[in-house]
Amino acid sequence: MNKLDLRLSSERLFTRLDTLGAVGATPEGGVRRLALSDADKDGRDLVTRWMKELGLSVRIDRIGNIFGLRAGQESLAPVMTGSHIDTVFNGGNLDGNLGVLAGLEVIETLNEAAIETRRPLVVAVFTNEEGARFQPDMMGSLVYAGGYDLEKALNTADDQGVVLGDELQRIGYAGDMACGEIIPSAFVELHIEQGPILEQEGVTLGAVENLQGISWTEVIFSGQANHAGTTPMHLRHDAGYCAGALASFIHDLAKDIGEAQVATIGVIELEPNIINVVPGRARVTVDLRNPDNARLVEAERRLQVFLSELAQAEGVVVQTKSLARFDPVQFDHGIARCIEENARALGHSCRRMTSGAGHDAQMMSRICPTAMIFTPSIKGVSHNPAEATTPEDVMAGAHVLLHTLLDLTRD
Amino acid sequence: MNKLDLRLSSERLFTRLDTLGAVGATPEGGVRRLALSDADKDGRDLVTRWMKELGLSVRIDRIGNIFGLRAGQESLAPVMTGSHIDTVFNGGNLDGNLGVLAGLEVIETLNEAAIETRRPLVVAVFTNEEGARFQPDMMGSLVYAGGYDLEKALNTADDQGVVLGDELQRIGYAGDMACGEIIPSAFVELHIEQGPILEQEGVTLGAVENLQGISWTEVIFSGQANHAGTTPMHLRHDAGYCAGALASFIHDLAKDIGEAQVATIGVIELEPNIINVVPGRARVTVDLRNPDNARLVEAERRLQVFLSELAQAEGVVVQTKSLARFDPVQFDHGIARCIEENARALGHSCRRMTSGAGHDAQMMSRICPTAMIFTPSIKGVSHNPAEATTPEDVMAGAHVLLHTLLDLTRD
Repeated sequence: MNKLDLRLSSERLFTRLDTLGAVGATPEGGVRRLALSDADKDGRDLVTRWMKELGLSVRIDRIGNIFGLRAGQESLAPVMTGSHIDTVFNGGNLDGNLGVLAGLEVIETLNEAAIETRRPLVVAVFTNEEGARFQPDMMGSLVYAGGYDLEKALNTADDQGVVLGDELQRIGYAGDMACGEIIPSAFVELHIEQGPILEQEGVTLGAVENLQGISWTEVIFSGQANHAGTTPMHLRHDAGYCAGALASFIHDLAKDIGEAQVATIGVIELEPNIINVVPGRARVTVDLRNPDNARLVEAERRLQVFLSELAQAEGVVVQTKSLARFDPVQFDHGIARCIEENARALGHSCRRMTSGAGHDAQMMSRICPTAMIFTPSIKGVSHNPAEATTPEDVMAGAHVLLHTLLDLTRD
Repeated sequence: MNKLDLRLSSERLFTRLDTLGAVGATPEGGVRRLALSDADKDGRDLVTRWMKELGLSVRIDRIGNIFGLRAGQESLAPVMTGSHIDTVFNGGNLDGNLGVLAGLEVIETLNEAAIETRRPLVVAVFTNEEGARFQPDMMGSLVYAGGYDLEKALNTADDQGVVLGDELQRIGYAGDMACGEIIPSAFVELHIEQGPILEQEGVTLGAVENLQGISWTEVIFSGQANHAGTTPMHLRHDAGYCAGALASFIHDLAKDIGEAQVATIGVIELEPNIINVVPGRARVTVDLRNPDNARLVEAERRLQVFLSELAQAEGVVVQTKSLARFDPVQFDHGIARCIEENARALGHSCRRMTSGAGHDAQMMSRICPTAMIFTPSIKGVSHNPAEATTPEDVMAGAHVLLHTLLDLTRD
């Protein structure tokens, strides 16, 4: 038969999404499965049971990543897909879960059609992608790819002082496979966009070819709290004005640098935060992202120049602290092209795009050729019970995953 | 003797300031005598005892204002001085208290010198000037001057639901004198500046000739919370940026309108206030003040125009609510001149100035010619345990009060 005639079962995929989504369901219609919580254990138990029912050989590594292996015709490096099943405090049921369960649906479809692939296939479930309970985020894939020390990760405590390694033992997912033992020939992750671009442009799928660099800076302005009525403007050292001027600057900076640059002031906290007192202190966070590292560095440089000039002009002390800095990631051109070609062959509109968020694929790209498939997020909403993608778009993404994996297993 | 030879006792004045300052003293070296609290009762008991010891006839009106009367040679309308003895949560011991206790020191000095004045003299202690426990502030003088309904004031509850009228009864200061029964021929209030102008200019005293108009506005921006990485700048509805743009605008507006205009963003609260989320909602307060009402109205108009344009440009909804609006107050030129002449005759530098804060004198100016004397505030600090004025400056202000009151009692 024509390879494109192979069809996934939307009924099975949505049943699995609903069944997993019921584990840790919140009253608002969302899901709360924090990494290594009881709910995460229940979700893991469910997914590993499904893996075993599909005949996959299940392995757990030392950071708790789960791998379901389907043998190939030859003993080659496998093609891997997957994502995560942990969630934020009140997330949706597609973020992460779609990538894992679409992988299982691909396996079940191949099983039913009795298709043997040349290379083995692996469906991965990475530990603690969200970072809502234990930091850093994307921990399981980062440790797996050798980017973070295993012991350090195992010793991480949550804000209650509970240690990650102990939780892995407690829920039965402290495996003995070495991290990084399986090096895939390729990694492909299907994920919701978590942004508005595809919906806004009326495009069904994204072939994600790179991932933005991220620069997080905390800025503290220390000025002088003063009476708002009795202190003339020229005698002020107004930390609140500085926070505002920074928010305006950042906004203009992003527009000036151009399309792919984004800049966000997410946090402003003034002290004393009273209507008739000139703020004496302000804490502000700056989030800068760009897929081009040179431009990101330029944005950071201009931020520092602005802050120096502002501090001098307003007579305040400015302190900055880097909270995070990730270089941009370039995905594999060949896999991105393969995704795009399969999308078009299946009749779906598709565009190359940049991921604005971090994903497990970002970490896997350190050890193998990697790319991602994005499905549209309605209104760009994610990390929220209202997170949604139309069933048609979900199935479009899953079918492109199927055929991209099939292509990659032939290489 | 030359009238300027009459001298107050700094020892007596500072002993009274320290004694009253010990009532409700805080561990940080400040004072907490919230209106109609037990500490306020103790402070009132102390001041009324001093009044009686000085031979003053003490009367309490229905809102709890205290009046200590010293008879004159003729039954004319009296000259009144005074201020308040309630404090903010952790205030200093000069704000308000200085005006009351300098008034008592004037009385004691006149008693000792056996000076009879033509007009009677009254030292007033107004209820709840600070507004820290019951709103509005300046309540006692406002009710006295007929600007606020007595019954409404008596029915005011604090944030624990305790009613002001009940508290007046409880602490024994629910008097029976009608509010406004004594209409003075003139009112003079000695007060600390609570701002940095006198200190910055190296001037010892202020002859306060007017009081700024005040316009308080709450601004709510409702945009859309979005992922900071995945939402391009042109698709954002960023309430945090709007808050920042408003703070920048307000700052430039004040500088553009000129010297006497002040503008403050005291409060910025973002939601969700997370580093990697574009803020969906922002609450911002705007405090505009100008002694010229036409300019204040112009500032308010330009604020509204800016907010409309910003809302349209950023695709957010903006709601504004007036939290307070007071027209500027013009004090009496003759009294301000009298203050200035006495200051110079006593060898003190003095400048005409505008009060940026509200005071009981503001309310009394509704019913009689009024002006104020300001002493410098070190570093402009007030409403804080660190509030301070040098003893020399305190005595300079008190002596000018003495001679100004003497001049006014002759009229």
